[in-house]
Amino acid sequence: MKTINTRRSIRRYAQREVSEELLNCLLSEAMRTQTMGNLQLYSVVVTRSDEMKQRLAPAHFNQPMVTQAPVVLTFCADTRRMTAWADNRQANAGYDNLLSYQNAATDALLYCQTFCNLAEEEGLGCCFLGTTVYMPQMIIDTLQLPRLVVPVATITLGWPDEQPPLTDRLPLAAIMHNETYKDYTPESIDRFYAEKESLPENKEFVRINNKQTLAQVFTDCRYTKKDNEAMSEGLMEVLKRQGFIND
Amino acid sequence: MKTINTRRSIRRYAQREVSEELLNCLLSEAMRTQTMGNLQLYSVVVTRSDEMKQRLAPAHFNQPMVTQAPVVLTFCADTRRMTAWADNRQANAGYDNLLSYQNAATDALLYCQTFCNLAEEEGLGCCFLGTTVYMPQMIIDTLQLPRLVVPVATITLGWPDEQPPLTDRLPLAAIMHNETYKDYTPESIDRFYAEKESLPENKEFVRINNKQTLAQVFTDCRYTKKDNEAMSEGLMEVLKRQGFIND
Repeated sequence: MKTINTRRSIRRYAQREVSEELLNCLLSEAMRTQTMGNLQLYSVVVTRSDEMKQRLAPAHFNQPMVTQAPVVLTFCADTRRMTAWADNRQANAGYDNLLSYQNAATDALLYCQTFCNLAEEEGLGCCFLGTTVYMPQMIIDTLQLPRLVVPVATITLGWPDEQPPLTDRLPLAAIMHNETYKDYTPESIDRFYAEKESLPENKEFVRINNKQTLAQVFTDCRYTKKDNEAMSEGLMEVLKRQGFIND
Repeated sequence: MKTINTRRSIRRYAQREVSEELLNCLLSEAMRTQTMGNLQLYSVVVTRSDEMKQRLAPAHFNQPMVTQAPVVLTFCADTRRMTAWADNRQANAGYDNLLSYQNAATDALLYCQTFCNLAEEEGLGCCFLGTTVYMPQMIIDTLQLPRLVVPVATITLGWPDEQPPLTDRLPLAAIMHNETYKDYTPESIDRFYAEKESLPENKEFVRINNKQTLAQVFTDCRYTKKDNEAMSEGLMEVLKRQGFIND
């Protein structure tokens, strides 16, 4: 799995099919990933048809990968199947609450990431779409997700037609804490972000966005408080509508 | 990464150290995993001291792995570092909301799973502790996690001293949906759960719990509605206290 060291998100794909055999093999192998009580509280919806990609695209801000990738995979937190099993076996399921959402989202995300690791080792390229939780209701409507199912991750998948540069990472010390959490100080922040802030591509990013600092590009342009708060309300609404939170 | 095909959770570990070099190498490599805007909204707390393992154990229902494993890793959703960065760069961070929690939990879980896949390929054994979100406040207190940091996954890690049998999985058709979600019917539930229900170990599980069906073992004994609802309240309280949900 040393492919991890040269891993990049792939947004341009070759005109080459991802066979059903290969996809099913990778989705099956990824199922070895541990889940809560081995209940596999996830589902994955496979999108191959152009029509469905077109319908999904707006939920992902029309990022071109959604319509151009041969395959789009939507990973869902799913306690519906478990509940249906219980309902059919004289068992009283109680998986319509916040904890169960958290557990099912965890199962789905771990499964998704093993899938990505396996796919990339196979030479495939993936792009993880963070937009999945921005307007989940559009995805729910398009994929006809019933109660107790919420999309938590979307992957576009195909054979790479680009090799973008590796992106930067924080030093390990920035994310690792020994024994207890050591809170950040102005000095440690300077140290941990120095490399990121010094990179030419990030300086350019500040310049073209007319900002003073790289952090401002994120807070003022890419992930604003206003958007986050509006989308938090939308996410809460979806968790209520899909049955995971009661008023 | 074909080790995935023989992957099992490991709960018994050899008396053999996991070196700091190896651990740091794996934690660094796993950082290649994609995150939202490449912001790496996660932290990991490394527990090696016996005292801290003893203090963490009750939060994990005193499962013996916690005190016996050479290393315990607690992966946290973390928008605190990003917020500290913004605060020190004249930027107005807005990552104290539900969407930001979801994004940070996603980053942390994907990172955690790549770490597990890398560790297992190295011959290490892991056990993922689902208990992390059951009583998160105990973990927060023990590890001194500040506002905007919430534990979402715990891994016990060491060199395997057991080789338990592979556990069963649902057939791929049970979790995969083509183009749209096909809801479950009594017939499809029977088909998808037939193998799981027929396994001798699962039949034994039903017998020793004095239940009629395997599903009842989960709903009545392992993951009850009552416990889930109580722990949902606890989780909501923690999300409020750590700053991700406002009343």
